[in-house]
Amino acid sequence: MQQVKGGMNMKRVYNFSAGPAVLPEEVLREAADEMLDYKGSGMSVMEMSHRSGVYQSIIDEAEQDLRDLLNIPANYKVLFMQGGATLQFAMVPMNFMKNRVADYIITGQWAKKAFEEGKKYGDVRAIASSADRTFSYIPDCSDLPVSEDADYVYICQNNTIYGTKFPELPNTKGKDLVADVSSMFLSEPMDISRYAYVYGGVQKNVGPAGLAIGILREDLLRNETLPGTPTLCTYKIHADNGSMYNTPNCYAIYICGKVFKWLKAMGGLPEMQRRNQEKAAILYDFLDQSALFKGTVEKGSRSLMNVPFVTGDADMDKKFIAAAEAAGFVNLKGHRTVGGMRASIYNAMPKQGVLDLVDFMDRFEKENK
Amino acid sequence: MQQVKGGMNMKRVYNFSAGPAVLPEEVLREAADEMLDYKGSGMSVMEMSHRSGVYQSIIDEAEQDLRDLLNIPANYKVLFMQGGATLQFAMVPMNFMKNRVADYIITGQWAKKAFEEGKKYGDVRAIASSADRTFSYIPDCSDLPVSEDADYVYICQNNTIYGTKFPELPNTKGKDLVADVSSMFLSEPMDISRYAYVYGGVQKNVGPAGLAIGILREDLLRNETLPGTPTLCTYKIHADNGSMYNTPNCYAIYICGKVFKWLKAMGGLPEMQRRNQEKAAILYDFLDQSALFKGTVEKGSRSLMNVPFVTGDADMDKKFIAAAEAAGFVNLKGHRTVGGMRASIYNAMPKQGVLDLVDFMDRFEKENK
Repeated sequence: MQQVKGGMNMKRVYNFSAGPAVLPEEVLREAADEMLDYKGSGMSVMEMSHRSGVYQSIIDEAEQDLRDLLNIPANYKVLFMQGGATLQFAMVPMNFMKNRVADYIITGQWAKKAFEEGKKYGDVRAIASSADRTFSYIPDCSDLPVSEDADYVYICQNNTIYGTKFPELPNTKGKDLVADVSSMFLSEPMDISRYAYVYGGVQKNVGPAGLAIGILREDLLRNETLPGTPTLCTYKIHADNGSMYNTPNCYAIYICGKVFKWLKAMGGLPEMQRRNQEKAAILYDFLDQSALFKGTVEKGSRSLMNVPFVTGDADMDKKFIAAAEAAGFVNLKGHRTVGGMRASIYNAMPKQGVLDLVDFMDRFEKENK
Repeated sequence: MQQVKGGMNMKRVYNFSAGPAVLPEEVLREAADEMLDYKGSGMSVMEMSHRSGVYQSIIDEAEQDLRDLLNIPANYKVLFMQGGATLQFAMVPMNFMKNRVADYIITGQWAKKAFEEGKKYGDVRAIASSADRTFSYIPDCSDLPVSEDADYVYICQNNTIYGTKFPELPNTKGKDLVADVSSMFLSEPMDISRYAYVYGGVQKNVGPAGLAIGILREDLLRNETLPGTPTLCTYKIHADNGSMYNTPNCYAIYICGKVFKWLKAMGGLPEMQRRNQEKAAILYDFLDQSALFKGTVEKGSRSLMNVPFVTGDADMDKKFIAAAEAAGFVNLKGHRTVGGMRASIYNAMPKQGVLDLVDFMDRFEKENK
């Protein structure tokens, strides 16, 4: 059952990690080939001055390919930043707060962390939450008590840990929408114009850890951040310097650029959405008919990317995770705050991986009833 | 003159970039070999959960090897962080200021940037500077007017742009010393116990961009940072979570770990110091006798890592840089604020690269007098 591909003593497993996570094999092969000599430059991308022409074309192409994939409107800036979503939790209020009021919709741990961080900077209000049922659903967001003086409304659009996704964007009643899309970034088309600011850590669906990408409507760029905002936490600094105010995570941008090209070659985000819907349906359909395994998320709120499930018996969960790992299905253990299992089936997880997993689960169920 | 090594249509140049910069070829080869399957895990290091056992052993080994190389005392923490030196410029005052007073020694652009950033947080004082002669020397720091209530004294120990290095550490009169050692990190042994905090961006002498390493005396770990300090800018958060409060730059840590092992295999930092002194002497000795090229730094303040030089004629500088590049000596252009040339000869630059460069300069001089 172990996935052996590519020959030369090389093993590849089906990796269901929630992030860092599986990357397209083609991308990894190209990166390996170019490791000592990127396109005749005589250097690895890791060794290049970020101020060189050869590196400038890498970052420029990455940005353009991302703009193509997401149809990013011309009045939005693309920013490549360090510090992950966690630093964004502070940067969002530091940059966007004028009235020092913001509304948060709490649909899981990451939204909650952003909310807690926001408390350092102003009056942040939880205007909706699904904590009452362990974040297993997305609350109705059609008519929320949005604050009149809110600087923005904040959501985490796909919840990696709990496996939910907003079925539609909240009604912000005219306020700017800020969304953390880390674990669904580039999994389907998005209408960027509906957001003021969208950002994601790339280490879930796009590339290696250590890079966050932000897409920001340019009228929000301000010099007047909150007092004490570090220079590097100022969006305008990144925007004015083409994401190179200081040395960026050059290698991660290069790998993301390769992933963007891979996505374009696959047919872009409409095709990825079709594939992701197909893969998710295979897994959810199995869970919905299984007598042993059960999905933990309400039907209307299910993520295409992260699929948590349980047997209801912690020992059985443990047995399943161990058996799966031995069979080459790795990183299926659920987040420590939820338990059970979680299969993250990002863009780079092939349909065959999901089919094989379901086949394995089916056999496990028969052997364990 | 082009450096072709390794066969298979692979070209490798002599790369004198100030950073990101040359890495050991052995390290790059290993990284390429492990790109699709790290030691039988069936995954690239880029695809691994940072919470997995296999990744934990990568970061643990990296830390231990770094501790071995620098003889880091047990009461110092090692932190792997994002945001580069630029974010450290804010983190240092945010974390270390109690009296909101700090003293800075201004020996170049990076010290000055740290000083300017410090102004956001307290009363920062420039107690010495070499700006009067374009930062071409290190001022006498044996008896400076250190502030009685200074929370720390700050230096940039090796100045990448101007090519200077402190010949000895300043007399801080009992105050804590904080040092940015980015461009000399691991180029020679250091007595860590003389510093309160040492940090460096790794992209100069250690690894790929997007990672800063801090070495911090543990009595300085505090929860009481300045108001508004982002969680991710709190040293104690990194220390308490083994540098994994959030997903770190996993791949850069992995590459740095390989560089640490390479350094140990080479004989450690005493041997690197010997080699670096030897390489620097080859270049400085040539400059000191040349009629065309001239080093820009006073003898007692010269860096082993960054060697700026000029012809005194901007057109001749340009001609030299173009000729050198055509001959496979790349990234010799000086920083935009200094002009002329700069050869960065970090650990991974072989002696042969410096010998060949001097040979090329000698021939260029004869052809252009």
